[in-house]
Amino acid sequence: MNSISLTVWPLTKERFAAFGNVVETDGADHHPINDGKAERYHDLAGVDVDAEGGRPLVNIFRGKPWTFPIAIKMLERHPLGSQTFMPLTRLPYLVVVADQADGDEPGMVHAFLSEHGQGVSYHRNVWHHPLLVLEATADFLVIDRGGPGENLHEHHFESDSGYVIDAMSIVSRS
Amino acid sequence: MNSISLTVWPLTKERFAAFGNVVETDGADHHPINDGKAERYHDLAGVDVDAEGGRPLVNIFRGKPWTFPIAIKMLERHPLGSQTFMPLTRLPYLVVVADQADGDEPGMVHAFLSEHGQGVSYHRNVWHHPLLVLEATADFLVIDRGGPGENLHEHHFESDSGYVIDAMSIVSRS
Repeated sequence: MNSISLTVWPLTKERFAAFGNVVETDGADHHPINDGKAERYHDLAGVDVDAEGGRPLVNIFRGKPWTFPIAIKMLERHPLGSQTFMPLTRLPYLVVVADQADGDEPGMVHAFLSEHGQGVSYHRNVWHHPLLVLEATADFLVIDRGGPGENLHEHHFESDSGYVIDAMSIVSRS
Repeated sequence: MNSISLTVWPLTKERFAAFGNVVETDGADHHPINDGKAERYHDLAGVDVDAEGGRPLVNIFRGKPWTFPIAIKMLERHPLGSQTFMPLTRLPYLVVVADQADGDEPGMVHAFLSEHGQGVSYHRNVWHHPLLVLEATADFLVIDRGGPGENLHEHHFESDSGYVIDAMSIVSRS
């Protein structure tokens, strides 16, 4: 096995911008509603699911925890729709994405760690790893696309390559 | 003031069916995904936002707590779109809705108390009260409609009528 160790960066809007949105109140446009009894942080996810007759689905994904070292053996992408993951707990989770590249293979792979309940919304066709929950089983509200058409591409790394994430690979946010 | 005291029922799919969906894993269709590392509870909210060129928005509402007794002085409805509220905490909150009635006024008013992180999704045009957070400031992920058209009706009860909810009005779930 000839895996590449992935450095895990703190998840921020700036680092994640090429891949999608970070769903969080920090730095988001907002305005008071309901006579001041609530604040609306507006249009955070960039939902994009209507291609080819698509419609938005709201689901709960219940993810089981992964344990280090985590082998990244595949990535997937959804050519017809964005996919938003909002944690219903404050537990951290890993976000693994890849650059677009020519052809059907993912480019350079990047890893991030969420904190304090940050959500992520992958743009259409962005390579990403399925849910990587860490500490305990955790629920996410997921907004994705239902409808006709082929909306899943998978890429499986060769068995002698791939990527690995270890607890030591995590860069502290401070 | 001649307010009517509202009894607050435990929020269940059955009681809420005429008004919208309860977003929860209990009793929902689900299937394994991601090689068994996650379970997908599928299409829970019945999102319906595409009328008249609408599109889905994902927002965070940060609600301030209300204190008992709570006076219900108005209701609103969105004729062009559903509106889904998913709490990002496990704190209980109140859900107040009204039956459809002839004309532009709400019918009989009903109140429910959520538990354990249940979300609600109001169907299009269902009369409801804005967010009623109880114990502490709490965030909700809200999926609603953006786009052209008039998507808000409000009904204000006469100053000598309306409804009131007291802590004593809550029916225990047991």
